[in-house]
Amino acid sequence: MRQPMFEKIALVGIGLIGSSLAHVIAREGLAGHVAVSTRSPGTLARARELGLGDSWHENAADAVSEADLVIVSVPVGASGPVAEAISPSLKPGAIVTDAGSTKKSVISDMSPHIPDGVHFIPGHPIAGTERSGPDAGFADLFENRWCILIPLPGTDAGALEKLSNFWQACGSNVDTMDPDHHDLVLAIVSHLPHIIAYNIVGTADDLESVTKSEVIKYSASGFRDFTRLAASDPTMWRDVCLSNKDAILEMLARFSEDLSSLQRAIRWGDGEKLFDLFTRTREVRRSIIEAGQETDTPDFGRQAVLHPEHAKD
Amino acid sequence: MRQPMFEKIALVGIGLIGSSLAHVIAREGLAGHVAVSTRSPGTLARARELGLGDSWHENAADAVSEADLVIVSVPVGASGPVAEAISPSLKPGAIVTDAGSTKKSVISDMSPHIPDGVHFIPGHPIAGTERSGPDAGFADLFENRWCILIPLPGTDAGALEKLSNFWQACGSNVDTMDPDHHDLVLAIVSHLPHIIAYNIVGTADDLESVTKSEVIKYSASGFRDFTRLAASDPTMWRDVCLSNKDAILEMLARFSEDLSSLQRAIRWGDGEKLFDLFTRTREVRRSIIEAGQETDTPDFGRQAVLHPEHAKD
Repeated sequence: MRQPMFEKIALVGIGLIGSSLAHVIAREGLAGHVAVSTRSPGTLARARELGLGDSWHENAADAVSEADLVIVSVPVGASGPVAEAISPSLKPGAIVTDAGSTKKSVISDMSPHIPDGVHFIPGHPIAGTERSGPDAGFADLFENRWCILIPLPGTDAGALEKLSNFWQACGSNVDTMDPDHHDLVLAIVSHLPHIIAYNIVGTADDLESVTKSEVIKYSASGFRDFTRLAASDPTMWRDVCLSNKDAILEMLARFSEDLSSLQRAIRWGDGEKLFDLFTRTREVRRSIIEAGQETDTPDFGRQAVLHPEHAKD
Repeated sequence: MRQPMFEKIALVGIGLIGSSLAHVIAREGLAGHVAVSTRSPGTLARARELGLGDSWHENAADAVSEADLVIVSVPVGASGPVAEAISPSLKPGAIVTDAGSTKKSVISDMSPHIPDGVHFIPGHPIAGTERSGPDAGFADLFENRWCILIPLPGTDAGALEKLSNFWQACGSNVDTMDPDHHDLVLAIVSHLPHIIAYNIVGTADDLESVTKSEVIKYSASGFRDFTRLAASDPTMWRDVCLSNKDAILEMLARFSEDLSSLQRAIRWGDGEKLFDLFTRTREVRRSIIEAGQETDTPDFGRQAVLHPEHAKD
């Protein structure tokens, strides 16, 4: 058994990210002890039942006491209150990080509560599924995904290296970025796609001319792809929208501008313009597959769902 | 061996739909002979190499001669010219159908060329992947998907039943619909999703503040889902946009209206409105999964792509 990277890791929040961390930390032997904390007694009991971590605490301050690494993975709107609650119990020299999808808001909410002598290094593992809660986690979630760390002015190089090694041990590739750029990049690769997906599913759900049953029956023709993102955790995504407003509004404006131009091409029958766009976008998918960030089997490799009577064969 | 449903079936067009039909017709023994036709000599040679069908014809008129069932699966913009080309060779009593994604345009383009005594019943199998061409087909494509048939005024009930039985033998469920309603339903479940996907991928590709490499590396956070639809065949989708303009513009207008309202909620920090929408859309996915139209494994059941060094273990 190799020496664990950290004597004690505290996981504050045990949803998809927290529970996946618990799995991979256990598998790789990265901690001597994992303390788990979440506000909801039901979720905490479930985490214990699932064997996630080694001790369980309703109070986040209890979990972080004596921890060398504290990972906060809660909806970003809760980052500030969590930081305030754990502040008095943080061990000098500990590393505090988070997994939130927005970084400027998290930094301004958490930083004021981090005592001198504690290393606060915000982070964001770019990985997820549409599921949430402690049952959703799995050890491979971070495998070959990117984790973005945000060194702040004066960040200790040793602490940054330690955190970076931790994420690599979880399977991730690690990048660093400044918070402004992070929030802009994520607005286009993650926040806008979720907002658009939520929006189109809402539009379809509201139609009076097409029934809900028709939308569902014929969804395999494209629509169902959007429903995956639109099934993501509502609290998490409400908080993201409220916490990265400027970058999201900027990307929404660009998207709408492009959509107006595409709409005009459709109205005026500009086939060449349509064909050019529809060709160019193919290349983007190819690059994502080549970068190992997407499966190269058709239809995401979805399993066919058989007729009940055929499945019986 | 059971009696084939049709002595001879002609497949005009041997892309994803045509080649999938060739596979399932062979597997189920639905035809005595399958004649394959496509304009491109390279594609025709490939179809022959793949063993799709029993005879191969550059000229569609040769393929349809003596056929009892003719299935035209070409980009909808080519439907009219194909109908004109095959018109003189159609056998009296034959059924002619198609697989196009728009129905009003196909009916107005093909109908004038269908001789009296030939049964023209437009159709649309609601099934596909982002791949195209004769290599893309597979026998299960239509399994538990819906095929919409469009009976025209005076359609022969016997011919409609025969075509309906054929699609059921291919694994499909069959619905009938009038062409206006079809085009409206498909505008929301298929055409709008593709247009939105093409648009967002284009927007991301155009940004000067976020590099292409960043879009690709971090795409697992949502963006990559859209690239699947945006990798679909450009010719097919250009034709769809040009052929279902009114319904698409109507759905685009609704989508944009809803998006403006969502944008306003983000700008003004209306968390309750965001939370309500994000909760409602979850239900839609649940219904689609319950209807057997979507896989219920997280992340579409995508295969994790391992680090090259881990994969070696």
